[in-house]
Amino acid sequence: MQIDTIVLDAENHVTLTAFLQDVGGEYRGVSKRPGLIVIPGGGYLFVSDREAEPVVWPYLNAGYDVFVLRYTVGEKSAWPRPLQDYEMAFAAILALADSWHLDRERIAVAGFSAGGHLAGAAATVSKYRPAAAILGYAVLNETVDEINQDAPRIYECVTKDTCPCFLFASRSDNVVPIRNTIDMLSALEKFGISFETHIYAGGPHGFSTGEMAIQGRTSSFCPRIPDWVGDSIGFLKDVFGELTTEGMTKPRYKARVDGDQDAFLSFDCTIGRIFSRPAAKEAIQPLIDRMRREIRPDRPDMTLEEMLDSLKRMTLRDLCMENQIPISPEMEEALEKVPNI
Amino acid sequence: MQIDTIVLDAENHVTLTAFLQDVGGEYRGVSKRPGLIVIPGGGYLFVSDREAEPVVWPYLNAGYDVFVLRYTVGEKSAWPRPLQDYEMAFAAILALADSWHLDRERIAVAGFSAGGHLAGAAATVSKYRPAAAILGYAVLNETVDEINQDAPRIYECVTKDTCPCFLFASRSDNVVPIRNTIDMLSALEKFGISFETHIYAGGPHGFSTGEMAIQGRTSSFCPRIPDWVGDSIGFLKDVFGELTTEGMTKPRYKARVDGDQDAFLSFDCTIGRIFSRPAAKEAIQPLIDRMRREIRPDRPDMTLEEMLDSLKRMTLRDLCMENQIPISPEMEEALEKVPNI
Amino acid sequence: MQIDTIVLDAENHVTLTAFLQDVGGEYRGVSKRPGLIVIPGGGYLFVSDREAEPVVWPYLNAGYDVFVLRYTVGEKSAWPRPLQDYEMAFAAILALADSWHLDRERIAVAGFSAGGHLAGAAATVSKYRPAAAILGYAVLNETVDEINQDAPRIYECVTKDTCPCFLFASRSDNVVPIRNTIDMLSALEKFGISFETHIYAGGPHGFSTGEMAIQGRTSSFCPRIPDWVGDSIGFLKDVFGELTTEGMTKPRYKARVDGDQDAFLSFDCTIGRIFSRPAAKEAIQPLIDRMRREIRPDRPDMTLEEMLDSLKRMTLRDLCMENQIPISPEMEEALEKVPNI
Amino acid sequence: MQIDTIVLDAENHVTLTAFLQDVGGEYRGVSKRPGLIVIPGGGYLFVSDREAEPVVWPYLNAGYDVFVLRYTVGEKSAWPRPLQDYEMAFAAILALADSWHLDRERIAVAGFSAGGHLAGAAATVSKYRPAAAILGYAVLNETVDEINQDAPRIYECVTKDTCPCFLFASRSDNVVPIRNTIDMLSALEKFGISFETHIYAGGPHGFSTGEMAIQGRTSSFCPRIPDWVGDSIGFLKDVFGELTTEGMTKPRYKARVDGDQDAFLSFDCTIGRIFSRPAAKEAIQPLIDRMRREIRPDRPDMTLEEMLDSLKRMTLRDLCMENQIPISPEMEEALEKVPNI
Repeated sequence: MQIDTIVLDAENHVTLTAFLQDVGGEYRGVSKRPGLIVIPGGGYLFVSDREAEPVVWPYLNAGYDVFVLRYTVGEKSAWPRPLQDYEMAFAAILALADSWHLDRERIAVAGFSAGGHLAGAAATVSKYRPAAAILGYAVLNETVDEINQDAPRIYECVTKDTCPCFLFASRSDNVVPIRNTIDMLSALEKFGISFETHIYAGGPHGFSTGEMAIQGRTSSFCPRIPDWVGDSIGFLKDVFGELTTEGMTKPRYKARVDGDQDAFLSFDCTIGRIFSRPAAKEAIQPLIDRMRREIRPDRPDMTLEEMLDSLKRMTLRDLCMENQIPISPEMEEALEKVPNI
Repeated sequence: MQIDTIVLDAENHVTLTAFLQDVGGEYRGVSKRPGLIVIPGGGYLFVSDREAEPVVWPYLNAGYDVFVLRYTVGEKSAWPRPLQDYEMAFAAILALADSWHLDRERIAVAGFSAGGHLAGAAATVSKYRPAAAILGYAVLNETVDEINQDAPRIYECVTKDTCPCFLFASRSDNVVPIRNTIDMLSALEKFGISFETHIYAGGPHGFSTGEMAIQGRTSSFCPRIPDWVGDSIGFLKDVFGELTTEGMTKPRYKARVDGDQDAFLSFDCTIGRIFSRPAAKEAIQPLIDRMRREIRPDRPDMTLEEMLDSLKRMTLRDLCMENQIPISPEMEEALEKVPNI
Repeated sequence: MQIDTIVLDAENHVTLTAFLQDVGGEYRGVSKRPGLIVIPGGGYLFVSDREAEPVVWPYLNAGYDVFVLRYTVGEKSAWPRPLQDYEMAFAAILALADSWHLDRERIAVAGFSAGGHLAGAAATVSKYRPAAAILGYAVLNETVDEINQDAPRIYECVTKDTCPCFLFASRSDNVVPIRNTIDMLSALEKFGISFETHIYAGGPHGFSTGEMAIQGRTSSFCPRIPDWVGDSIGFLKDVFGELTTEGMTKPRYKARVDGDQDAFLSFDCTIGRIFSRPAAKEAIQPLIDRMRREIRPDRPDMTLEEMLDSLKRMTLRDLCMENQIPISPEMEEALEKVPNI
Repeated sequence: MQIDTIVLDAENHVTLTAFLQDVGGEYRGVSKRPGLIVIPGGGYLFVSDREAEPVVWPYLNAGYDVFVLRYTVGEKSAWPRPLQDYEMAFAAILALADSWHLDRERIAVAGFSAGGHLAGAAATVSKYRPAAAILGYAVLNETVDEINQDAPRIYECVTKDTCPCFLFASRSDNVVPIRNTIDMLSALEKFGISFETHIYAGGPHGFSTGEMAIQGRTSSFCPRIPDWVGDSIGFLKDVFGELTTEGMTKPRYKARVDGDQDAFLSFDCTIGRIFSRPAAKEAIQPLIDRMRREIRPDRPDMTLEEMLDSLKRMTLRDLCMENQIPISPEMEEALEKVPNI
């Protein structure tokens, strides 16, 4: 274990503290580690200690190298200063990634409240995009106007290239309204982005990990709140793969749930999408004939359209696999020439 | 333990099966039990066994009496027939509640897929409203048009009187799109209703409890899915209180997160709401004076408006409690005379 | 779901209540189910309701068929009457197993307190042995003299044929001393039987599942107590395999941790045992030569004895597998001719 | 966070690495923290990295300051050298406790395998006793002869002054036999020491925290193994109290389950112990009279002896509390004058 603190801007107290774990030796099979950048909250007025180191430990435990970003707050924090701080930090991490044995393809961010806004900006508008984002009771919609007037409303910045997101919050948060999280879910859904979310029935704003030494218990504290920590680690396993003694496993999910947002069609598009494009039907005519025969042999009266209607949200790849219909490379190529417009 | 099956409509196979636990005796302090009505899915075409009894066991374990509703499906299931089936069932439960030692104030519904639609209708438009609803990968928006043309879009029926809801689903559900759940969250938020939600990163439609004997595992099955069962039990504890050997404990949360949806103001309204009504300020003038003095004594220069601006989403009751400012009955009464318009 | 109650002895109120789940239909791949017989406690004076049905639900949830045995208590409960009741019940279960779609090779018992004594007797001295036993704060040693004078001390009855056991209790149990559980662990260890145990730091006797509706909370109730339920289900998966939509998976553990208790040697015996038998060395000489060369090629000076000394508790099969040394059928046969004396 | 490494013996690579968390500031109410000394294993031949830092993170997360002890191994590790290393380390910790804001009354040890032997020695024979010990697949009986000939067999060193212990191991450990843990349980029970134990059905020796990046999964790895980490944190809460934003809560359990090991009797002794001492009966005669009348008023025929027989393992204090019989200071004093012999 090694703790390095890099001063990125001494005047504004912008620092990156790296918590770096060993590789090799008794960690057989671990030659590099995934990383997580923790971005504490504080309303762009201060940087909360409660959302800094306490967040580090569980991810170290999961095998991550963890970084705490302290960014410009207070008078000089007008946008885009905090984003620039983040970008400096990310550039520094990339520059040192090899010497730190860090997997540069698997760097996530985890931000809380205003830090969740900054993490959201990292995920949507920054030069350096993380591979996944954890957004805790984050400022993601117009609420940002109250804390940093010129900063973007994150949910309006989501595109098909936004990374997978894990969102959590308390329903009754009386500082950052839950509408922030709902608006973000809505935007992620619209662009087909993979996400997971846990909104707990109640609890205060700013609960951090929910550990007793950090967050006092009142009658309105939902006892399920601390679950987000382990769940977020599970989510990172799902989208990054899991760090094991044999290296990383294969991820369970891609960044997008299907190919419907891509410029060209593919077998990863949904059936509804593909069959709404006449050119697509031509491209895969032999496959269509086979599907017609094999998927519902009991219903020769059914038209293909009727048959596919109930399956329209499935990807064509999943449908073929489930029905053991092989996909030829020629067919893949043919479909990928059809524009998705 | 006693299992009673009540035939509500023999021709259409509408039945209510009651799983009733003992009270008294060695269950010291348990004189009546809360109830849960399980409504399986099946697209209004069939009633799924996988979402019937397997859902019963964990809630029996939590101390509930549980009911399985089998409603009209197939040709005769045009709306509002299934809702009428539900209403018949609920009426039967109420009629038998005393002999069954059932707590009629604490009857929840749990519906899945199309059954989630019916549970949602129970929560919003039925004559007999449950006290809480669990909605699993439920049909809640326009998707309903595909399975029951005349049935309501549940999210459009939410009002300030909708019960607390617990929603769960898979992000990548390719039968009932996740937009259904998001639309419902949005509506619940708008009306200030208490809710909890868990949307898992991936997994198939129709996973029921996620137990291995019910739902096979594929690479896309999110390992956190089975957590919804225990979490939903926790949620019911939060909004109903917990069944203990000393009777029910006090609930943690009310049906609405604050009083902002009520016809008249109260101390349960948010500060933002109260102070936007001039008549309210007059009604509680002595309290305002005291707040001005005691909440930020370090900033005598601050106007009350400035001071309250950062607290505007807090309820006045919470603010007073936190600052140990007593609330007199006279003040409560005075505020409750001010219309909330 | 079907509940059948079989009256085994009306005069003494001996009954077996069967909670039987469906197979086939939507339970694809489930053609028969494992079973669990629940044996409540009560000091052979009464049969506790708190350890009867509340124990049924979690195992139904795990896919088991569950049976509650109510046995002779009070004046007529002199040993071996309760054991005979158990044997009648087991015989009835076997007789009905096929019609109940029950897996007769996978029937476990779960007993509590005095019922844990009876479950222990089932596991050690009965005509009908269960395939696994769950023993909760059970009477297993001389404590039995206080409640049923002629009954056996279970830990003295353990042999190499005792089934795998899962034991749990509270350290501070002031009715059945924790020594009961320790004596049993000691006996199981001596005979090489597979087991798992969870002894919690504190808590009352008779906590059953620990659910709030069954067991009140005092300051001395250990919050980890309810974990035993899920852990015991995990243990049953480990020794029975897991019930899935594709049938039962392969068990993780055998009834004994190695072959050292068998009449003849085998590759499942520990290295220490095998190499202490001169005849064994002769039987597997070619393998020994290869082991000498391949296991520690860096230490040609080491004698085989030195090399094996640190591995003496490993089974020969595990050692060969770990070093990728193939085991020939001839070698297996040769070793299995050597008596283990 | 601050990491300090203290070199205790440069020649033999004996070091103590302290991971120290902040107090005060945003950690409202936290003025000092409990501590944990981690002692990795390695057969007194090496110090395993896998049982060093990976063990640190979860306890930091629970609010502890954590220390890793690297002690003398290999040629110079003959007993009592490793114990002396531990004692040097503990003395250094005590010397620095105030400047480190460490709670010197709440320092635990956690040792693994050979390190579990050293932790066991700390708990039984060292000059500096920890307040609790976590012993993971530890060498505690004659097995020690194989790795350090002159070292004590820990289970033979247990006395009434041994601290509360948390023990965990795998049933099928083929390096350190499970008998080690059972022998220790037996000794702790004999002296009335508080303990908790989790023995998992199977798994390899040396699994550390069981995290995937540290311990590979084979078919014999019990999936419940990683639970020990959270359970041990729960155990420390039980015996130390819990670190909260309001300071430490009251412990749930004392070091011994009752007063039966003390030199003089007290209300914390069991009823069986107290009433076997004639002098005790005299000392508390008025109380006895009252008990006789009030505990079983329905059975005036019962002698006190009969009545108490079923309660003999309860402490007198618990019995009085349960029956709401007040205990006067005079009575307490009188009983505490009676020798417990």
